[in-house]
Amino acid sequence: MFSEFLPVIAAIIAVLFMLFQIKSNILPVSEGNERMKAISGNIKEGAMAFISREYKYVILFVVIVAILIAVFIDINTMICYIFGSLLSMLAGYVGMRISTASNARCTNEAMSKGLPDALKVAFAGGSVMGFAVTGFGLFGVGLVYLIFRDPATLMGYSFGASSVALFARVGGGIYTKAADVGADLVGKVEEGIPEDDPRNPAVIADNVGDNVGDVAGMGADLFESYAGAILSAMVLGFALFGDNGIKFPLVLSSIGIFSSILAAFIFLRKRQNSPQSALMFTIYISGAIVLIASFILSSMYFGNMKAAICVVVGILVGILIGFLSEVFTSEKFNQVKRIAEESQTGAATNIIAGLSSGMLSTVGPIILISIGILVSYHTMQMYGIALAAVGMLSITATTVTVDAYGPISDNAGGIAEMSGLDESVREITDELDSVGNTTAAIGKGFAIGSAALTALSLFVTYTETVNLDTLSLLDSKVVAGMFIGGMLPFLFSALTMNSVGKAATEMINEVRRQFREKPGILEGIEHPDYASCVDISTKASLKEMIIPGALAIIVPLFVGKVFGPETLGGLLAGSLVTGVLMAIFMSNAGGAWDNAKKFIESGEEGGKNSPAHHAAVVGDTVGDPFKDTSGPSLNILIKLITVVSVVCAGLFI
Amino acid sequence: MFSEFLPVIAAIIAVLFMLFQIKSNILPVSEGNERMKAISGNIKEGAMAFISREYKYVILFVVIVAILIAVFIDINTMICYIFGSLLSMLAGYVGMRISTASNARCTNEAMSKGLPDALKVAFAGGSVMGFAVTGFGLFGVGLVYLIFRDPATLMGYSFGASSVALFARVGGGIYTKAADVGADLVGKVEEGIPEDDPRNPAVIADNVGDNVGDVAGMGADLFESYAGAILSAMVLGFALFGDNGIKFPLVLSSIGIFSSILAAFIFLRKRQNSPQSALMFTIYISGAIVLIASFILSSMYFGNMKAAICVVVGILVGILIGFLSEVFTSEKFNQVKRIAEESQTGAATNIIAGLSSGMLSTVGPIILISIGILVSYHTMQMYGIALAAVGMLSITATTVTVDAYGPISDNAGGIAEMSGLDESVREITDELDSVGNTTAAIGKGFAIGSAALTALSLFVTYTETVNLDTLSLLDSKVVAGMFIGGMLPFLFSALTMNSVGKAATEMINEVRRQFREKPGILEGIEHPDYASCVDISTKASLKEMIIPGALAIIVPLFVGKVFGPETLGGLLAGSLVTGVLMAIFMSNAGGAWDNAKKFIESGEEGGKNSPAHHAAVVGDTVGDPFKDTSGPSLNILIKLITVVSVVCAGLFI
Repeated sequence: MFSEFLPVIAAIIAVLFMLFQIKSNILPVSEGNERMKAISGNIKEGAMAFISREYKYVILFVVIVAILIAVFIDINTMICYIFGSLLSMLAGYVGMRISTASNARCTNEAMSKGLPDALKVAFAGGSVMGFAVTGFGLFGVGLVYLIFRDPATLMGYSFGASSVALFARVGGGIYTKAADVGADLVGKVEEGIPEDDPRNPAVIADNVGDNVGDVAGMGADLFESYAGAILSAMVLGFALFGDNGIKFPLVLSSIGIFSSILAAFIFLRKRQNSPQSALMFTIYISGAIVLIASFILSSMYFGNMKAAICVVVGILVGILIGFLSEVFTSEKFNQVKRIAEESQTGAATNIIAGLSSGMLSTVGPIILISIGILVSYHTMQMYGIALAAVGMLSITATTVTVDAYGPISDNAGGIAEMSGLDESVREITDELDSVGNTTAAIGKGFAIGSAALTALSLFVTYTETVNLDTLSLLDSKVVAGMFIGGMLPFLFSALTMNSVGKAATEMINEVRRQFREKPGILEGIEHPDYASCVDISTKASLKEMIIPGALAIIVPLFVGKVFGPETLGGLLAGSLVTGVLMAIFMSNAGGAWDNAKKFIESGEEGGKNSPAHHAAVVGDTVGDPFKDTSGPSLNILIKLITVVSVVCAGLFI
Repeated sequence: MFSEFLPVIAAIIAVLFMLFQIKSNILPVSEGNERMKAISGNIKEGAMAFISREYKYVILFVVIVAILIAVFIDINTMICYIFGSLLSMLAGYVGMRISTASNARCTNEAMSKGLPDALKVAFAGGSVMGFAVTGFGLFGVGLVYLIFRDPATLMGYSFGASSVALFARVGGGIYTKAADVGADLVGKVEEGIPEDDPRNPAVIADNVGDNVGDVAGMGADLFESYAGAILSAMVLGFALFGDNGIKFPLVLSSIGIFSSILAAFIFLRKRQNSPQSALMFTIYISGAIVLIASFILSSMYFGNMKAAICVVVGILVGILIGFLSEVFTSEKFNQVKRIAEESQTGAATNIIAGLSSGMLSTVGPIILISIGILVSYHTMQMYGIALAAVGMLSITATTVTVDAYGPISDNAGGIAEMSGLDESVREITDELDSVGNTTAAIGKGFAIGSAALTALSLFVTYTETVNLDTLSLLDSKVVAGMFIGGMLPFLFSALTMNSVGKAATEMINEVRRQFREKPGILEGIEHPDYASCVDISTKASLKEMIIPGALAIIVPLFVGKVFGPETLGGLLAGSLVTGVLMAIFMSNAGGAWDNAKKFIESGEEGGKNSPAHHAAVVGDTVGDPFKDTSGPSLNILIKLITVVSVVCAGLFI
């Protein structure tokens, strides 16, 4: 009995811990001088303007889908759907509100006290997103389970989370890169003003973009994985082990929250001088606690260690994929150095090196995922795969914390620059930010790995729901579906890349217009109109996400209805495989180009403004939509089409 | 009885027709003045140097594999294997010998008589490759069938063809791009001398590359598809329909040869002023004859129209994929224009536009292939899919002819340039060449489409051979295999792209060395050492293909042996899906970049030497290994790993 209430209790504790962080570690810190406050206020305003406009669309979308669910499926699923989408929106709102409240505070701490205090604020700010995602996520899962008891109905919750993730990740991804490219191309390249210069009309939109894409988008992505993994484990576990199959993932996730709280406490208790090792330590400590707990729970519920083995596999695969991402995207390793070296012979060789490095980077993660699938399936069949996903995601609070920490320190640096603070402040925030790049790479690896396992367990849930005992590759319907599904990530990536291009063009035109109509901006005597740039990025990104978003929902419905559940099953499998591959390829290629450019800027291969640097800037620009828009959006695609198929399974049979 | 001998008879007629073309339409034509003869001689020498060195490696490889087959499988399979590899080598040798003999003759006809006569020589030269591929290919298939009768044993023949294709396509692809990049980067970019300038030491290697990659590589690729499709249709047809299931594909392929001869006759009979429509006409006429024949044969052998429907599907899918390739790679359509337009904002936007256009271009072909699979399977189960492949490949003689025509006219232009002939000659060869680009795009579409269907029917043959009644996506072994298989094309592409980079670097160093040590070369008073460049490209390309080539053979053997036939089945399916997708993506992106650059050079978007042009050159350089090395090599990968699995099936069960 207690174990059924535990998730809700753990979730409430997570939310209380989050509020405690806000009250004790964020709000009491000063936001610095008036200029800093004003800039931070602009960013906050822009981010909130985006999120409120986005939510208007989301709510419209959710209402329409909810009505359709009520008509074609049932009312309970509809209630779960609405609940899932509302909680995901709430998590995104809180997380982004606090991340934009933390940036100037981080700058101020860097200015007045030094690195350890700045790190503390950035970490506390990130942890709000971490505990919002897991707290609200688990609260909802626990509650709908207490109310409805039927695991199948609960998948509506996962669908709700996916709907929000679609807007947040795809829309946010387009937003952030449109603003970034617009700011860079006109500001840095055409007018020659530095990064984060307050004269650049797109500079606020650019900083808003970091929050919109890397905080809210990433958070919604992991909210979806988190809920999807737990729910599909519940469905599969119930079928095999009855109530115990449901309790294990719920209790494990609760313990994951406690372990993350403990890790955060330990982190904040002492002054951290080395951000990198301190952040990694939180991952290790929370992972270790979950591991130990999994052995106890496994023996309690199943009388053996099998479930624990699956959890171990999940956590190991997640962490190792994260490390491999770093190997392929950090300038400490050969791949990035090679890209930097190839930049000496021009942009073309830089691009070829980046593309081939990204393709090569798929090998390790895919082997890890395959081993994970084999071992966890061998141990507990399909339930094992779901448990591996739950295991990987049990420490989501911690991984989201260290991931959301990145954009906060990035913003903090931007505010330091725009406020004209001393170089030493920027140095501190740059150090925090560079660690943020590493943790972001690990976070992306986690996001992809968990999306893969979650989508796979959702896929299995789908086949159970439509009563497919087999889904044979010797059936032409399955093969045809697999080809179509395999193609979807290519189509989706093409669409999202084009969307970035179009939104960026609108931004470029706006920035040029402002410089042309108000020549005083560049001289620093006229104020640029930040709001109009924020507005353009917001509108363009939300408009541009409609087609890819609609595709992700309509294609599985169409294929399932017209060609039947086997073809749809093949489609899900095909899109899972190429989706994971393309996501890894694009994220790592983008990360590698980015760091190759930074490596050159640090003085290698000719340094800043050398021909190699110009070539590396081309790669970095290509990599932007790769790593921040198309790549992460594929995580959403593979989960969303699967969850749509699960929820609407009844329509296909 | 007659129908069993028909393939051998048709094949002999094809070879006779080929000899007739050589005797009557190629050799009698003059090779022009001494300078032209000398240049053509250099190209011929370089091409033959490459092919003889390549064949040394191939023979070593074939001997080793043959011994392994004899030890682990059986002697008959070994004999078929050796036979398949020898005939593919012979086809490549003859085709390349004649294509290099046709280039200067084409130039001379352009100079002395005009476009129609030059077109005739180029067409005749291309047709030699076309009839060599189909004549030798069908001869071998027909003969080994007459001797061994057991379709399963015959798969050794297909493996032999695949082994040669691996070297020819992958090695040739690396060769051609290493030479191209080396020639362009040092010659055009660093020293500012024009394309095809005789002072460039790499210029002969570059022209050799066109023959090595686009003639011999493409020919071996289609030889493999051609043999693989017919043989897998025989295996699957025998299982379902006994002898009639074997006879239908054999007779249909024989008729395909006759129809191609007829089409070539009609083409050569009159003076063609419009190369484009004349070449397309040969495709239509030979396709139409095969279509009609398929209906008669279908009713003869099966008493219904089902087999004909599959053939129609195959031919339609092939031609439509070809057209879609053109839509995405020709400057007449929007995609290429958009890439050219995006070049105005620099190399990064050019690259993003090309990548997204290439990804988008996968949609149509994949839908066509899926429809083809569904319809042909629905009509005649797995045999239907194999028949669709046979249908598509029945007009291989014609498609290879119009494809190999391209590099001949390209070479002809190079010879005109190097011999300092009048501008008007170059104009004629340029017109021929630009048509060649279109036919090459269609040919590439055909090559990919047929590789997909051939690999799919080989995959089915594999499952039959290892006695798998089902291969379920609910089996974790299958799913894990699918992930690994899906990753292989990414790994293969990464490796081949890197290989081009390494081989090109060696070439660049050599060209720079020659310019440095012999300053007289650039002044035109010293002779560059063409042979050393040819030698470097040859050595580097053969060395660089070892690892990707070995992978394609070792990975399926390892997975099959260690993880069993189900995992290997999943691997084959996964690599088939991503292999086809990546091949289409890379080929079309590369083609689009190429033509976007040419479009700008024709005076659009600022014309030659404008900033847009410089950006487009970057895209073109990235596209080179995409479209000429990695993309086409994937055709080989997906067929080779499947045929290895079929032949070695006995080892896994």
